Amino acid sequence: MPRSRVHNLLISLDGFSAGHRVTLETPFGGAEALIPFFDGRVIDGVGGLPDAVHADHAFFSMWGQGIGAEIMGRRKFGPHTGEWLDDGWDGWWGDAPPFLTPTFILTHYPRDSIEFENGTSFHFIDASPAEALRRAEEAAEGKDVRIGGGPSTVNAFLRDDLIDFMHIVVVPIVLGSGVSVWQGLDGLEGRFDIESVTTGSGLTHQLWNRVPRD
Amino acid sequence: MPRSRVHNLLISLDGFSAGHRVTLETPFGGAEALIPFFDGRVIDGVGGLPDAVHADHAFFSMWGQGIGAEIMGRRKFGPHTGEWLDDGWDGWWGDAPPFLTPTFILTHYPRDSIEFENGTSFHFIDASPAEALRRAEEAAEGKDVRIGGGPSTVNAFLRDDLIDFMHIVVVPIVLGSGVSVWQGLDGLEGRFDIESVTTGSGLTHQLWNRVPRD
Repeated sequence: MPRSRVHNLLISLDGFSAGHRVTLETPFGGAEALIPFFDGRVIDGVGGLPDAVHADHAFFSMWGQGIGAEIMGRRKFGPHTGEWLDDGWDGWWGDAPPFLTPTFILTHYPRDSIEFENGTSFHFIDASPAEALRRAEEAAEGKDVRIGGGPSTVNAFLRDDLIDFMHIVVVPIVLGSGVSVWQGLDGLEGRFDIESVTTGSGLTHQLWNRVPRD
Repeated sequence: MPRSRVHNLLISLDGFSAGHRVTLETPFGGAEALIPFFDGRVIDGVGGLPDAVHADHAFFSMWGQGIGAEIMGRRKFGPHTGEWLDDGWDGWWGDAPPFLTPTFILTHYPRDSIEFENGTSFHFIDASPAEALRRAEEAAEGKDVRIGGGPSTVNAFLRDDLIDFMHIVVVPIVLGSGVSVWQGLDGLEGRFDIESVTTGSGLTHQLWNRVPRD
């Protein structure tokens, strides 16, 4: 059975993964202090890394393994809100977004799809989490679906019990405010088996596996 | 710069990775107690795993990332010694060996190459570690070369300082005897930066990165 998986979700000690104000200068909305703890060079594997391979890289590199589609929130796609501007915005990632699969962007303002030569395509849908997952699973053709964030999107999928696996990275910093993936999810841990591993960098990697549903 | 990498090298607490007597029934030569601690289902990634994804899987799944060729010792290829028998032996792995790249087998008895439809090819060469690495690097076309073991082969490459990265898995069992990767390598740790991480299963994953050569 294909799964829905969350990867590389960085969370501060006080529970925040992003700030509230996403702008062109602050894509993490004010939670930019999390960024140095992540190494995006290895999301497709540790081959070619020009310096040392660390334990954190092993965890980060699971991101693309066996993934056939992604779902992301609109705030991950860009800083816009409301009606789309006619400004040619096609995401933060230039001509070669790293997703390499169909990618569904949740928005109340659907627009035309965008296709890239590297296999990435962006599809803008106004759908519930369950309906979005159904469409992404169909597009994934038997592979897993990544719930790509941000934290509000992961929160919505967790509320509806639509996540099978999460790789959470607890980062040893305090942000003070921001968007929390945990909001309103008291007792969530009861639905998962959780393994925690701390590495030499001070990061704690948590692997949350949904316990089998009855 | 492409690297030479060792992955998933399981070692008992007393330092053994294989037994001395490889037969058809005992491919690990008597060190079969190591096998249950390894999960070969994830060497190409955690996608499609039918049960929980654990931290050990993240480490195991680095095996194939960015690899363009492998070098292995003859005892990894099969139980034969001396002149080859005309028995059609083409390895333990059936019609689809997992290597998916050119694979060089060190032997004093060269024989014709074997090619498989999945991209794996076996080439039998009588060469020093340095010469074998040169040939494998050429075949890897810019990707990394995996030094695939067994322990005697890794030992020979370490003696000649030809390893850039090692993922070693310390397994909490005692074997009592066998083949050691460490034989004659007193002080080896001085050439590497070493990170150790222990997971919930009791395995300790060590990442050995060669310190930059002057």
